[in-house]
Amino acid sequence: MGRVVVEVMPKPEILDPQGKAVVGALPRLGFTQFTSVRQGKRFELEVEGDVTPEVLAAAQQAAETLLSNPIIEDVVNVFDATQVPA
Amino acid sequence: MGRVVVEVMPKPEILDPQGKAVVGALPRLGFTQFTSVRQGKRFELEVEGDVTPEVLAAAQQAAETLLSNPIIEDVVNVFDATQVPA
Repeated sequence: MGRVVVEVMPKPEILDPQGKAVVGALPRLGFTQFTSVRQGKRFELEVEGDVTPEVLAAAQQAAETLLSNPIIEDVVNVFDATQVPA
Repeated sequence: MGRVVVEVMPKPEILDPQGKAVVGALPRLGFTQFTSVRQGKRFELEVEGDVTPEVLAAAQQAAETLLSNPIIEDVVNVFDATQVPA
């Protein structure tokens, strides 16, 4: 069984209210190191069999159409994660 | 400027309604390869200066307390992503 990971982040110029909320909460919990936080999404897609180039291409296309909103988000990574433990 | 990435996924035994919605939508768009989808979160935390072991430890602790709900989510990755383009 194969696994593809798709990572999606808000575009840099887009306001990210979830990230703003996190960066505001961190110092209240004692974490004063962090100056900026962005929150995105991470998908794990499983396939029967191996992650072929065709599967990766389909995942890339799904990432750009269904898994992200190209107006406000970038697909930052699509990769074969079969060898990575779940 | 350094960047730490934190990745959080729903625990395997927890129902993931967002992932279920995606796996139901994929075949309607012609993507029939994928048998299962899980949706999690990906955070990019920025720090002034380098990502030291102390910064990574703080990010791990923030990941386990603020960025994830340990009842239903696992922190799957905390790593220095300074060298990775944004």
